[in-house]
Amino acid sequence: MQRNLKITLVSLAAGIIGFAATVARAQEPLPSWNDGPAKQAILEFVTATTTQGGPQFVPPEARIATFDQDGTLWVEHPMYTQVMYCLERVPALVKSKPELAKVAPFNTVLELLHGDRAAMEKLTLADIEKIAIATLTGMSVETFQVEARQWLAEAKHPRWKKPYTELTYLPMQEVLKYLRANGYKTYIVTGGGQDFVRVYAEQTYGVPPEQVVGTALGTKYGYTKDGKPFLTKEPKLVLNDNDAGKPEGIHLMIGRRPHIAFGNSTGDQQMLEYTKAGDGARLSLLVLHDDAEREYAYGPAEGLPDTKVGTFTQALYDEAKKNGWTVISMKNDWKVIFSFESK
Amino acid sequence: MQRNLKITLVSLAAGIIGFAATVARAQEPLPSWNDGPAKQAILEFVTATTTQGGPQFVPPEARIATFDQDGTLWVEHPMYTQVMYCLERVPALVKSKPELAKVAPFNTVLELLHGDRAAMEKLTLADIEKIAIATLTGMSVETFQVEARQWLAEAKHPRWKKPYTELTYLPMQEVLKYLRANGYKTYIVTGGGQDFVRVYAEQTYGVPPEQVVGTALGTKYGYTKDGKPFLTKEPKLVLNDNDAGKPEGIHLMIGRRPHIAFGNSTGDQQMLEYTKAGDGARLSLLVLHDDAEREYAYGPAEGLPDTKVGTFTQALYDEAKKNGWTVISMKNDWKVIFSFESK
Repeated sequence: MQRNLKITLVSLAAGIIGFAATVARAQEPLPSWNDGPAKQAILEFVTATTTQGGPQFVPPEARIATFDQDGTLWVEHPMYTQVMYCLERVPALVKSKPELAKVAPFNTVLELLHGDRAAMEKLTLADIEKIAIATLTGMSVETFQVEARQWLAEAKHPRWKKPYTELTYLPMQEVLKYLRANGYKTYIVTGGGQDFVRVYAEQTYGVPPEQVVGTALGTKYGYTKDGKPFLTKEPKLVLNDNDAGKPEGIHLMIGRRPHIAFGNSTGDQQMLEYTKAGDGARLSLLVLHDDAEREYAYGPAEGLPDTKVGTFTQALYDEAKKNGWTVISMKNDWKVIFSFESK
Repeated sequence: MQRNLKITLVSLAAGIIGFAATVARAQEPLPSWNDGPAKQAILEFVTATTTQGGPQFVPPEARIATFDQDGTLWVEHPMYTQVMYCLERVPALVKSKPELAKVAPFNTVLELLHGDRAAMEKLTLADIEKIAIATLTGMSVETFQVEARQWLAEAKHPRWKKPYTELTYLPMQEVLKYLRANGYKTYIVTGGGQDFVRVYAEQTYGVPPEQVVGTALGTKYGYTKDGKPFLTKEPKLVLNDNDAGKPEGIHLMIGRRPHIAFGNSTGDQQMLEYTKAGDGARLSLLVLHDDAEREYAYGPAEGLPDTKVGTFTQALYDEAKKNGWTVISMKNDWKVIFSFESK
């Protein structure tokens, strides 16, 4: 029996080794990334922080990774998805409150949606805020979720004619999965609305609601007529999760400093500084949109066209280079941008 | 070979079954609980929500459990631990700012700490707030963590003469572990300070910082002279995590409704209502301090002595009974209260 068992075990072991090799090939990390300094920096960081006994080992509970969303995980041009949501909710809003049809800025939005693109220029930041408050507050948390989910299922990006949730960057989806496979907890830390992003983050990125940190409005606890409690979304800003608000929001919601953080614009600068200033191995990265053909090109860093949506200034670029942050070139570092390209 | 292998497999299987039975005995859940309706309610809830294909099955990602801390997970009498912290930080504060030694309420605290117990009566809620702001804000997040950690290592509870972190309830520690072993994410949702509880929650309860929701003050991002970024704790209330603030805080920080929630006072009422109002299996529980001998007895529910610290009113008791919440009697439901008792 012993000899037979030995043979069985040997062939079993050979099978396991063969299987493991197959799995390793199948799971080669970051397949949509070209070999280069950005891919190498990520791979080296993960190896260093997960090598038990190594000088840069990070215990699993401290493995926190944070990602900006707009322009870092998915397309933000020509306009942030959530702003499109607020604008496209206006017709339903006007239907329930017809008196708004002739009131600015709601009338301007109606013109815009009827094809008058010049109307967009008329909208000020104060107008956008007014529209945001009218479309994002005053309803129960559950009603908002239903409305946002429905819009996301139907709305299409003007260029690709695809749902916004399909316009995530495949290389970044791979980074999310690769970090999670190595024990990192992946957080979204976005200037976008926390409740909005939570509606799709789990399905779209594998990031659960409790790992979405975003610009947050308050809620108010109350009861229905028959005594059932519910939360109403209020026009009260609890967290402005942009600029210095990002490290402040990270402290509020996570309570630990990230070991790795990804951004793409000046709104991410403080998060990347804060990450990099921690002890031990820390990696800060910026996605540079330098691929007009496959996606968009904007900066104004490195002579790219200027933009108000996701600005990446030369000063930010210089800070990155000075402090050892990694700048990811969409054009050079990414083999493909979207998963539908590779099909 | 086949027959031999079969024998091997059979004996292996027998071994596994024997081992599994041993593990099951060793891991019998909630050993510090007496058999009774409270223990039964918890066991039945967990079985129902984790039985795949069952009518009350809850998918793992939705398994959220929330726990009040003071009076639910650890002793809150004669005074909340964090209030003791703030009071006992006053000498160090006065040392760095000697002008405070003769200024109210700091002089009153010094008298109190020098043994004048009557001085406690002089302190108003406004005084406590003033002391809290002076001892909890104005320093970096890291400095606060060092100060709190040091105090926790040295401070002793006046009755048991043990560190506060040893005065957690063993039956509740078992519930935390039991729920986690069944795929629940366990959160602390406390009226206490979020940053304070985070200092010890991971070691004391196995609850990481990102799963502590508490009363939260804001922070402010800034730079040291040599350009290193840091966060300063500010006297700005971001979340008052009591009463209606608990469900509001749960929405802000977790974004999902708990399936099971534990509290012990009127400050937990809204969290328990909100939990119970969700769809499917939901369980709300209240710890009743009815054991003057082993811990404390206070209500004023059910004729227990009244208290300002962790008030459990008769109205709350009646609401619990009316709505099918479970009231846990410390006296009848818990075999032991503290882990040091059973040694």
